Amino acid sequence: MGWQALEMYHKGRLSSDSVKKECIVIKVGIVGGTGYTGVELLRLLAQHPQVEVTLITSRSEAGVAVSDMYPNLRGHYDLAFSEPDPERLAACDAVFFATPHGVAHALAGELLARGTRVIDLSADFRLKDAEEWAQWYGQPHGAPELLEEAVYGMPEVNREAIRGARLIAVPGCYPTAVQLGLLPLLEAGLIDAQHVIADCKSGVTGAGRGAKVPSLLAEASESFKAYGASGHRHLPEIRQGLTQAAGQPVGLTFVPHLTPMIRGIHATLYGRLNGEPGDLQALFEKRFADEPAVDVMPAGSHPETRSVKGSDICRLAVHRPGDSDTVVVLAVIDNLVKGASGQAIQNLNLMFGFDEMAGLGAPALMP
Amino acid sequence: MGWQALEMYHKGRLSSDSVKKECIVIKVGIVGGTGYTGVELLRLLAQHPQVEVTLITSRSEAGVAVSDMYPNLRGHYDLAFSEPDPERLAACDAVFFATPHGVAHALAGELLARGTRVIDLSADFRLKDAEEWAQWYGQPHGAPELLEEAVYGMPEVNREAIRGARLIAVPGCYPTAVQLGLLPLLEAGLIDAQHVIADCKSGVTGAGRGAKVPSLLAEASESFKAYGASGHRHLPEIRQGLTQAAGQPVGLTFVPHLTPMIRGIHATLYGRLNGEPGDLQALFEKRFADEPAVDVMPAGSHPETRSVKGSDICRLAVHRPGDSDTVVVLAVIDNLVKGASGQAIQNLNLMFGFDEMAGLGAPALMP
Amino acid sequence: MGWQALEMYHKGRLSSDSVKKECIVIKVGIVGGTGYTGVELLRLLAQHPQVEVTLITSRSEAGVAVSDMYPNLRGHYDLAFSEPDPERLAACDAVFFATPHGVAHALAGELLARGTRVIDLSADFRLKDAEEWAQWYGQPHGAPELLEEAVYGMPEVNREAIRGARLIAVPGCYPTAVQLGLLPLLEAGLIDAQHVIADCKSGVTGAGRGAKVPSLLAEASESFKAYGASGHRHLPEIRQGLTQAAGQPVGLTFVPHLTPMIRGIHATLYGRLNGEPGDLQALFEKRFADEPAVDVMPAGSHPETRSVKGSDICRLAVHRPGDSDTVVVLAVIDNLVKGASGQAIQNLNLMFGFDEMAGLGAPALMP
Amino acid sequence: MGWQALEMYHKGRLSSDSVKKECIVIKVGIVGGTGYTGVELLRLLAQHPQVEVTLITSRSEAGVAVSDMYPNLRGHYDLAFSEPDPERLAACDAVFFATPHGVAHALAGELLARGTRVIDLSADFRLKDAEEWAQWYGQPHGAPELLEEAVYGMPEVNREAIRGARLIAVPGCYPTAVQLGLLPLLEAGLIDAQHVIADCKSGVTGAGRGAKVPSLLAEASESFKAYGASGHRHLPEIRQGLTQAAGQPVGLTFVPHLTPMIRGIHATLYGRLNGEPGDLQALFEKRFADEPAVDVMPAGSHPETRSVKGSDICRLAVHRPGDSDTVVVLAVIDNLVKGASGQAIQNLNLMFGFDEMAGLGAPALMP
Repeated sequence: MGWQALEMYHKGRLSSDSVKKECIVIKVGIVGGTGYTGVELLRLLAQHPQVEVTLITSRSEAGVAVSDMYPNLRGHYDLAFSEPDPERLAACDAVFFATPHGVAHALAGELLARGTRVIDLSADFRLKDAEEWAQWYGQPHGAPELLEEAVYGMPEVNREAIRGARLIAVPGCYPTAVQLGLLPLLEAGLIDAQHVIADCKSGVTGAGRGAKVPSLLAEASESFKAYGASGHRHLPEIRQGLTQAAGQPVGLTFVPHLTPMIRGIHATLYGRLNGEPGDLQALFEKRFADEPAVDVMPAGSHPETRSVKGSDICRLAVHRPGDSDTVVVLAVIDNLVKGASGQAIQNLNLMFGFDEMAGLGAPALMP
Repeated sequence: MGWQALEMYHKGRLSSDSVKKECIVIKVGIVGGTGYTGVELLRLLAQHPQVEVTLITSRSEAGVAVSDMYPNLRGHYDLAFSEPDPERLAACDAVFFATPHGVAHALAGELLARGTRVIDLSADFRLKDAEEWAQWYGQPHGAPELLEEAVYGMPEVNREAIRGARLIAVPGCYPTAVQLGLLPLLEAGLIDAQHVIADCKSGVTGAGRGAKVPSLLAEASESFKAYGASGHRHLPEIRQGLTQAAGQPVGLTFVPHLTPMIRGIHATLYGRLNGEPGDLQALFEKRFADEPAVDVMPAGSHPETRSVKGSDICRLAVHRPGDSDTVVVLAVIDNLVKGASGQAIQNLNLMFGFDEMAGLGAPALMP
Repeated sequence: MGWQALEMYHKGRLSSDSVKKECIVIKVGIVGGTGYTGVELLRLLAQHPQVEVTLITSRSEAGVAVSDMYPNLRGHYDLAFSEPDPERLAACDAVFFATPHGVAHALAGELLARGTRVIDLSADFRLKDAEEWAQWYGQPHGAPELLEEAVYGMPEVNREAIRGARLIAVPGCYPTAVQLGLLPLLEAGLIDAQHVIADCKSGVTGAGRGAKVPSLLAEASESFKAYGASGHRHLPEIRQGLTQAAGQPVGLTFVPHLTPMIRGIHATLYGRLNGEPGDLQALFEKRFADEPAVDVMPAGSHPETRSVKGSDICRLAVHRPGDSDTVVVLAVIDNLVKGASGQAIQNLNLMFGFDEMAGLGAPALMP
Repeated sequence: MGWQALEMYHKGRLSSDSVKKECIVIKVGIVGGTGYTGVELLRLLAQHPQVEVTLITSRSEAGVAVSDMYPNLRGHYDLAFSEPDPERLAACDAVFFATPHGVAHALAGELLARGTRVIDLSADFRLKDAEEWAQWYGQPHGAPELLEEAVYGMPEVNREAIRGARLIAVPGCYPTAVQLGLLPLLEAGLIDAQHVIADCKSGVTGAGRGAKVPSLLAEASESFKAYGASGHRHLPEIRQGLTQAAGQPVGLTFVPHLTPMIRGIHATLYGRLNGEPGDLQALFEKRFADEPAVDVMPAGSHPETRSVKGSDICRLAVHRPGDSDTVVVLAVIDNLVKGASGQAIQNLNLMFGFDEMAGLGAPALMP
C-alpha cells in the first residue's frame, strides 16, 4: 500500500514519518552507534524512505536516548541505545557495524547464519589475507572463515557482487578517495605502478570521537601536520585494491595529514606516466560515466572538500602540470559519508534492490 | 499522476528528478541568486518534492551555470544565472527575492499585479512604518503602498495570515532568534518590557558573501568581537515584533557579535521578572507545542548552534539562574535556514497548501 | 655584572641566553607544568630577562623533556618534567602553581615557611571565605589559615599589597575581564549594583588540556553554546571582587559561552544607570590612565580578542546605546595571558621589584 | 651610552622604549605597510633592540594611524601611514618593500644610489632571469640592471653574500619551505633530480589581505583544496634554487593547497633515492647544525605548523617509509615569519652586523 501513503504525503496530508510507518520498509540495526559513523548512519537513514532503524547498540551509553546524545536527531528518532543483544540484532534485515576492529569478527557469523545481512564499516573484513590483518591490527583475525565470502563494498568496482552479498566490508575513508582517483590510470596501465604517491589530508573526524588530547580544538585547530608517515593501517587496504586494478603489485607511498576541519578528505595523487597517455580527461569521464556517486569535474578544476560536505559524492579532477610525465589527480570525499556511512548505505541499497542513491540525494552543505 | 511517479520512485525505478518532472509542482523563481540565501534556497529546494526552480537571476553572473559557481549543486540543477526579466519572473507561481534592500521594492508590485506571489528575504517589507525604514536604510521606501498587505512571515505568530498572503516579508536572522526566545515571556507579561537585553552571536555568513576584509578567514578566525553596539538595522524590526507581542512598547538593548564560524546564531536573552513567574519550562513548552520548527529543550539544557546546522529548527532553553529575578533564554538557529531561506520555504509551503515542513525535514549536519 | 652582559648582547656578541646566565636572575619553579597555563608560563618566561626556570613538575610526565611535549620550546629550555619535590621547590625564589584546585593548598604553607614565595594560578586562595570555597569546590578548604595573608593578584586593584605579598591568588580568566570592565562603574556608584549582567565568551583553552569529548575540534568547532547558565565556579570570585569595588553586595547574572577558537575571552557587560552618568569615556580613561596592562579604546570601538592574542593587555570599550539607561562595556583578554600566566608574571615582577611588564612586552599575534 | 640604558632597563627603571631612544639604533622604513607582511614586520621589529621604524608608507591608508588599523600595535608605535616619499625613504638606513610585484623595481635603484639598503619581500628580484620573470608576471622586468647585484636572501645558502649585500630578494614562502627541505638531498646528489614532488599546504594569509571571495571565512573555512596545480609563480623560483643546489636542472611537480588556518606552511616533499642513501637523519642534522633558524627534529617526528606559529624557525623531519626507495621530507614554517618578514629581518641583522636572530627569539605561540 506504499503508493497511497506516498500520494497522501505528496498532498501534504501525511508526514514522512507516517509514510515510513505505512510503507513496506526493512528493519535495520546499528552496532556501536555512539561514534561518528554511527550517528552519520542515523542522520542519513532519517531521510531514507525504505529503512527503519529499530535497534542501536552501545555498551557505554545503554539506556541513553539517541536524541539526548545527538540533539540534531531530536524529533527524528524515538530510540535509546541498548546493550548489544544477538537475538534482537538477528531480527533485523540488515545490521551495520560501526565499531572498533574486532567486534564484527565476533558477531558477524552468527547473524549471517540467522539470515541477517551484515555491513561492516570497520576494517574487520577489508583485507583478504588474515595474516596481513593480524600483523597490522596486532591481534589474530577473529573470523577468517568469512573472508572469502566478504565483498569489498566499493560499488564502482564490485557492484554486481554487492547485489548478491550477505557480508560487506565497507572501504575505509582514505582507501575510497585514493582508489577512486587512481583506478582509471592503473586499469589502463598508464602509470608506473611501482611508484605511486598518495598525499592525503583529512579532517579530524577521521580520528573518531575518542577523547584524545591531539584531537582537541586547542591542539588541532590552526595547525597542520602529517602523521603515520612511516606506515598507516589503511596502506595494505589501498595496496590490495590498487594491485587488483593494476593487475600487478603496486608500490605506494602514502602520507596522511591532519587538517583543521571537521569533515573531508582531499587526496592528491601522483603517478609517473609510462608514455603519452592520450586524453586523460576523457579517460576519467568515461570510466565514471555511469557512476551515481562519482563526479569528474571539468578539465582544470580544483575540487574543494566543502563541495561534498555531508554528501555521498566523490569529486575528481585530473591534471598534467606543464605537460610533464607526472600526472596529478585530485579527489575529495566527505570521510563520514562516501568514506563511511554513505557508502555503507549505497551497499545496503544495492543489496535490497533499492535505488542505489536512496537516502543519499541531498546536496552538500555549502557554505 | 503524481502517485504513480512516487510509487515508481518508491520501487527504485525512478529517480527523484523524474518524480519532479511527472508530478504537478509549482514553478519558482529566485531573484539575486548568488548570495548565501540564494544558494541556500537552491540547496533546500533541491529536496522539495513539489517545487521546480525555473529561473534564477543575477546581473553580475548572468550566463554562468549555477553548478559552476556552487559545485555542491552539480547534478541537481541544469540552470544558469540570467538577467532579471519581469516577463519570465511573472511566469512563475512564486518568486523569492534574495537581494540587497531596495530591489524588491521595485519589482514586487508588478509581480503581484500579474498574479505571482512574492516572498522577500530582504528587509524591504519588514517594517510597517515607511519613515522608520527610510531612516535606518538611508533612502526613501520604494513601495509604501504595499506595506499594509505585506505579511511578516513568522509562522509562529502569523500562520493564518501567511496562508492567505500574496506578499511575505521573511523575518531577519537575529529577529527570528530573539523574537522566538522572548515571545512566551512578553505575551504572558512576565518581564519588564522596558529593559530587555539581547546579546546575540552570529557566524560570518550573516555578513553576506561580499568581499570585505573583515570577513576574511585571516581576519575573522580565531577572534571574537561585538559590532554595532550603538545601533543595528535589525533593532527596529525586533522592537516592532516584541512590541506587538507585549502589547506595549518594548525597550531593547541589542548587541550583535561576530563568532568565528560559518553558520549559526546564538541569542542569549535577559529579562527582569515582574514577580513570581510560575513554571517557565511549562510556559515555553506549551507556547510551542504545535510548532514544527521550534524545539523547546529539557530544563537545564544549553542548545548548541551545530544542533541546527543546515536545518530549519529553532532550539530554545529557559533558565532562571540562582532563582533570582533574572530569566535567561538561550535560542539557536541556523541563520541561513530558519533565519532566512528555510523560513522562506515554510512560508511558501503555507501559501500553497503543502506540508509546512516539506523540503525542510533533514536533520542538522552534526558533527 | 649585568650591564656588561647586556651591553655585549646589545653589540650582538652575546645571545640572550648568555645574558641570563651572567645576570643576577631569580630562580623560579612551576608546579603542574603540562597544562596550558604551565606551558604559557614557559613561553612568556623564555623572554623574561631576569627569570630562570629551574624546575617544572608533573607527576604524569616526569622524565619527559619539556621540548618533546611542547616543540615550540625546542631550543629554549633544557629541562625535563620532574616529580614534585618540596626540597627542590623550596630552593626557588618563587613557585608558580599551575595546578588543579587543592594542590596549592597542600604545598603553599611549607614553601612560605621556607622563604619561597608562592603565586597560585588555581582557585585555591581566591575566595576569602573558606566555607564558600568548600561549597563550590565540593571539598574542605585545605589551608584556611593562609587566606588572610593571601593577596588577590589583580594589580589594578591591589598593586601595593602585591609588592609586599608572599602568597598571591592570581585571578581567574572570566573574573579578570568582568572586574576590569565593571570597576569604573561600580567604584563610581553609577549603576544598579543589584542587577549586573556579564555575558562572557571564551575560547576552548579555558576548559584546559584535559581529553574531554566536548573539547574535541569535531565537537566544538563550527558551533557556539552557553554552559553553566545556572551557576559557574567563577561567579563567587567575581561577586567578591565587585562587591568590594561597589562597597555593597552585587547581584550578578553571569552566563559563560564557548566560542570556537583557541584563545580569548570577550565579556559583554550590561548595567542599568542610576542617573545621568556624565562622560563615561573619560571615566574609563582616567581610571586606567596609569595601568600598563589595560587599554581603553577610543569611543565607539569594538575590541577584538585577536588584538590581545598572546599578550597581557586587557582592551576595553564603553557604549551607551541610543542614550538609553543601559551601559554596555566590552572587555577582551587572552585567557591564558592576562587571564592567567601573564597576570601571574605581572605579580612576580611587582613582588621582586622588576618592571611590571618585564617579559610581557610583545605585541599580540595578529593576524 | 647604550649599556647605561640597558642597565637601567635591567633594574626596572627604564622601559624598553626608552632604551631604544638612548641606544644607537638604525632607522628603517617600510613601503607598503598595510598588508600582512608589513604588519608582521612591525610586530617583530617592536621587539628588536636596535631598530627604529621611522616611516611606513601606504597610498590607500595615508594619514591613518598604524594602531588604528592594527590595534595589537597600540602602545608600540606612534606612527601613521604616509604617502611613499623617496626623500624620506632615502633618509633610512634600510627600507623593506612589502609590496605587490613591480613596486620595488621602480624605487630600489634610487634608494641604493643614495646609500639606503633595500630588502625586498616581493618577487621583484628573486629570479635571476628577467625574461622568465616577465613571462610569469605578465609585464617587463622593471630593473634588470640590478639583478646581478641582488642577493637571494636565504641565509642557509647565501649567508656571506648577504652580509655584504645592498639589495636583498627575500625568498617566497613556499620556496623557503621547499628548498630547506630538499637542500641536503640535492646537494648530496641522493635523489633523482628530474622527478621531485612538492605537495604544499598553506594557511590563508599566503593569499594576502586583499578582499577576495575565496578568502572569506565562509568560503575557506571547513574546506581544503588544491590550486594552481597547473603552474604557480613560485615554481620558477623554487626550481632556480634547487637547480643551484643540485648542480643540474631539477624537474619539479609543485602542487599548492589552501588549508583552513591563518598561518603556516607544511611542505611534504618526495624524492626517489638514487641508491642506498646512508643515514638520512645524520645528513640533515649535519647540514643544519649551525643554522639558528632551522631545527631538524628527532627521527620519526611529524612537525606541526603550530610549533612555529609566530616564530622564525623552520622545523624539518625526514622519513623513508617502509625502507622503500622514496624519501619523504616534512618541513613547516610560519609563512609570515620565516616565509617572509622574519627571514627579511634575519637578512637585515646580517647586513648590519647584529645577532642574526635579534628580534626573532620569541617561542612560537602554542597552543
